[in-house]
Amino acid sequence: MNYQKILETIYSQIKEGENQGATATYIPELSKVDPEKFGVNLTTVNNQSFGVGDTRDKFSIQSIAKVLTLCLAYQLRGESIWKRLGYEPSGTAFNSLVQLESDQGIPRNPLINAGALVICDILMSALGDAREEFLQFVRDIAGNASISYSEHIVESEKSAGFVNIALCNYIKSFGNIHNDCDDVLDFYFKMCSIELTCEELSQTFLFLANGGRKTLPSKPLLTPSQVKRTNAIMQTCGLYDESGDFAFRVGLPGKSGVGGGIVAVYPGHYCIAVWSPKLNKKGNSYRGMKFLEEFTTLTEMSIF
Amino acid sequence: MNYQKILETIYSQIKEGENQGATATYIPELSKVDPEKFGVNLTTVNNQSFGVGDTRDKFSIQSIAKVLTLCLAYQLRGESIWKRLGYEPSGTAFNSLVQLESDQGIPRNPLINAGALVICDILMSALGDAREEFLQFVRDIAGNASISYSEHIVESEKSAGFVNIALCNYIKSFGNIHNDCDDVLDFYFKMCSIELTCEELSQTFLFLANGGRKTLPSKPLLTPSQVKRTNAIMQTCGLYDESGDFAFRVGLPGKSGVGGGIVAVYPGHYCIAVWSPKLNKKGNSYRGMKFLEEFTTLTEMSIF
Amino acid sequence: MNYQKILETIYSQIKEGENQGATATYIPELSKVDPEKFGVNLTTVNNQSFGVGDTRDKFSIQSIAKVLTLCLAYQLRGESIWKRLGYEPSGTAFNSLVQLESDQGIPRNPLINAGALVICDILMSALGDAREEFLQFVRDIAGNASISYSEHIVESEKSAGFVNIALCNYIKSFGNIHNDCDDVLDFYFKMCSIELTCEELSQTFLFLANGGRKTLPSKPLLTPSQVKRTNAIMQTCGLYDESGDFAFRVGLPGKSGVGGGIVAVYPGHYCIAVWSPKLNKKGNSYRGMKFLEEFTTLTEMSIF
Amino acid sequence: MNYQKILETIYSQIKEGENQGATATYIPELSKVDPEKFGVNLTTVNNQSFGVGDTRDKFSIQSIAKVLTLCLAYQLRGESIWKRLGYEPSGTAFNSLVQLESDQGIPRNPLINAGALVICDILMSALGDAREEFLQFVRDIAGNASISYSEHIVESEKSAGFVNIALCNYIKSFGNIHNDCDDVLDFYFKMCSIELTCEELSQTFLFLANGGRKTLPSKPLLTPSQVKRTNAIMQTCGLYDESGDFAFRVGLPGKSGVGGGIVAVYPGHYCIAVWSPKLNKKGNSYRGMKFLEEFTTLTEMSIF
Repeated sequence: MNYQKILETIYSQIKEGENQGATATYIPELSKVDPEKFGVNLTTVNNQSFGVGDTRDKFSIQSIAKVLTLCLAYQLRGESIWKRLGYEPSGTAFNSLVQLESDQGIPRNPLINAGALVICDILMSALGDAREEFLQFVRDIAGNASISYSEHIVESEKSAGFVNIALCNYIKSFGNIHNDCDDVLDFYFKMCSIELTCEELSQTFLFLANGGRKTLPSKPLLTPSQVKRTNAIMQTCGLYDESGDFAFRVGLPGKSGVGGGIVAVYPGHYCIAVWSPKLNKKGNSYRGMKFLEEFTTLTEMSIF
Repeated sequence: MNYQKILETIYSQIKEGENQGATATYIPELSKVDPEKFGVNLTTVNNQSFGVGDTRDKFSIQSIAKVLTLCLAYQLRGESIWKRLGYEPSGTAFNSLVQLESDQGIPRNPLINAGALVICDILMSALGDAREEFLQFVRDIAGNASISYSEHIVESEKSAGFVNIALCNYIKSFGNIHNDCDDVLDFYFKMCSIELTCEELSQTFLFLANGGRKTLPSKPLLTPSQVKRTNAIMQTCGLYDESGDFAFRVGLPGKSGVGGGIVAVYPGHYCIAVWSPKLNKKGNSYRGMKFLEEFTTLTEMSIF
Repeated sequence: MNYQKILETIYSQIKEGENQGATATYIPELSKVDPEKFGVNLTTVNNQSFGVGDTRDKFSIQSIAKVLTLCLAYQLRGESIWKRLGYEPSGTAFNSLVQLESDQGIPRNPLINAGALVICDILMSALGDAREEFLQFVRDIAGNASISYSEHIVESEKSAGFVNIALCNYIKSFGNIHNDCDDVLDFYFKMCSIELTCEELSQTFLFLANGGRKTLPSKPLLTPSQVKRTNAIMQTCGLYDESGDFAFRVGLPGKSGVGGGIVAVYPGHYCIAVWSPKLNKKGNSYRGMKFLEEFTTLTEMSIF
Repeated sequence: MNYQKILETIYSQIKEGENQGATATYIPELSKVDPEKFGVNLTTVNNQSFGVGDTRDKFSIQSIAKVLTLCLAYQLRGESIWKRLGYEPSGTAFNSLVQLESDQGIPRNPLINAGALVICDILMSALGDAREEFLQFVRDIAGNASISYSEHIVESEKSAGFVNIALCNYIKSFGNIHNDCDDVLDFYFKMCSIELTCEELSQTFLFLANGGRKTLPSKPLLTPSQVKRTNAIMQTCGLYDESGDFAFRVGLPGKSGVGGGIVAVYPGHYCIAVWSPKLNKKGNSYRGMKFLEEFTTLTEMSIF
């Protein structure tokens, strides 16, 4: 399959169409990003890379990082993490507090904010310096030692992060946050502030298309079972309350962020990263969703 | 892959283990079924069939039939059906009325009771005699003209179907049921009462592993896009509020019924049907879940 | 206090002002009522009667009748009725199904539809012919043998009563309706269809201002404790999710109906009935609310 | 009426009976209080005082203070406060976050935690030093200049106040907290920490039985309409999700606190304060509820 040509065809077609939606406004810093940025990068399990558009611009990966904290916690603590959170789709918005009340502080899954906070808490208990060691983990799989947290994004998020403060304290009231809330929140905001390019993002997530290995003959980051399960969670929970829609239209496990990025994985074949800052009403990249739908439809490559 | 051997190995292993849970009690007729029944059948896209245990006993497929009504409505009405229901996981129990209140009578997806009632209503408006024509549709894809509704199951369900009566009337209060509720419910209970064997069930659902075609060179029942979407819906919504768990453990699109059956599809490869009447707390077959988890783990064949 | 003068003053003042809102449309028959009708009647515990406007026009008392079924059930079955429903305000709309799910089929109070259905069920189990005997009970306390159900209102409600059918079946699914749902609903729609004039309505509810006695030296209909409790329930639950507002503005126990009637009781002093068909957004009479607020403000007579 | 004798009769009767329930454990300091403490004090509008038991022991009034912050805010800001919160019963627990989600950060009423936080925020915007000026307000109406905040209670609450931190930040996320959350919470915890005796408590709330005046001919603290409305809110919302029960059994406007105090008001007649630290499941004083039920039943003095 001529990936380069397909990417270019779809890219120019979508570039010509409308660019609906709006950049995230609740994080002041994100609203300043050029809304016309648009990049796509695909990396195959044979480590061939294909790209079009703004593939070498850094952007804030935001919630996409939740998959990476999950993977590190999974690597370190194994199946025991599921005592503290579930892996069911929530059926409600990404920042909902409602279910925590009926579920007694056990978040539905690690990809909504509540669950990601619990994963951060697990990492803080497991590691000496979670912020530093998580960053190292990302640098290793991305193969780029210059990746780091964006302090101005962190500050911007903290100034508007009232719902996350509420979530963390609420979960702690049920005993499911063990560390100090301010610390957990600081780590949470930091991990969300990581900036990657589309190229780096598709490189970073390639191991989930590759049975847990970054490249042969590297040591696997996760067991095959853990990879399968992580992909399953991305499929059912990765795009908030639009996860069903993403499965329906795109048909690949994926994860979105309010920075406008979406990463998706076709196990055994490739990882693809798309970035366009304008978001639809559910908080997912408008052009990103559209691109991926076109791509899996045209290539007839979907897990379904 | 030696499917027969793998099926037998897992079967005997699970047969020796505990048989936890209980048969469905809220439908009196289902509680009379021998709880030790256990059968598995796998049909490949090349139409090879492998089976073990009680594969030729008829059982009530119950909610599994919701996929078949969906497919017929999809075939007849195309994407227009999504004006009347969604395709997002619900995050709540299969018979919940809560979301209908906030969602103004639009069911979350076609595989919860509320959504299946709307699909039945769509079929009744689209067809002259929905009961008869739906039965013919199932007979055709199963290749068995003797398949029919079980009148004593229908009677049994009606005697205890208060929640479904409530759901149908509640949806009608929002204007999203167009036919008479008693008629819609009669069709709903009838379609759930169909009895198939494991062999027939894996045959019947094979077209979803096969791009929409029963067998080559037959005319496709659904377009490739419709098949992909139906599988996506089964993946995210097929096992009620255990759908995330099923994706996580099994990793295949599937659908369960309170009769103890589960059918799962590996697109491009096979369809597998399991039947064991004892249900776990979420209403899914205890041994069925276990079998499928073992099967995809051992074969390392999962969509993720 | 010169009640007649006060009534007339407020009446003419409100009559001159706007008549906002709309008549109930979901019961077709009610939408045909002249929206400019407006009557008020006050009866003191000394049996003096004061009225102004359309006080001798019959109107459908609708939910106001729920207090009367409650009183008859309370008289017949005493405190045992509280095993099957509560006496807490619901915090949600009058026809909500949400709480029934979390409360396992136990309605919050007897003045929301769910609770009134359970009271109807209790009466059907307690009495030979609940419809007939309840009508006799109302005729007795109203002192008017010609009071009867309005068949055309019953038919009109049945044609649009899908939410009530849903509620009744849903409660039955929890085992908290013992009789056949169709029968319970028929009684429910009938009791809501009773037509009274403002004069009759203030006469009928006078016993709740009078320690349970219709007139001295009659036998009390309820014990003093039962009267106190019935008034307390009207205060906290009588105006649906506007009950707090009614306590806040009016400060008397009361009950409203979608026919545009409101009855309120000042224990030890009087009973007042207002009727004006246009309803505010919460389903309570726009002018009725306004009249009662003015009345208790001007007279400084409120239980608070 | 011989209040002293009635108080003593009921007191000794309840003292002999069981003392069910448990002291509040979520605020560590409150769990140390002697659970057998039991005091009652009644003050009439003529300023006669009657007491029995531990009426001169200080206890933490906790949520009872919410009525006092409401009254001060009402005095300072009038009806404009209702733009930022409601006066409807909530139908859910005192610390529920669920309704805030559907109500977009507008608390249902000022007597649940969410509403009291908004009232604290209003006071902080209205006053130079809200903590100091509120304390002065309480000292004035209690007629006791030594009343003050309990620092060790404040510390104890802060150490366990995760739900309140969550509530405050969640409301702020909707823009309905204008000051810094840490500041608002500090004031909130302080005002809840005030300690009064039963004698002082019945004195302090007397103005609500007295049309807004502490004593004649003092200047009224609130207008008659504001008093009526404050009492109405206590009636419908004062005992959390047991408010309906309190109206039903006791029949007086009242407010409880997790310190085991309950204060109730009979407009035009008296104010009564009860204290017993063991709480029932809803968080209200077990013996306090019982005492007040007996008292209004025996005296037949209730607003209903």
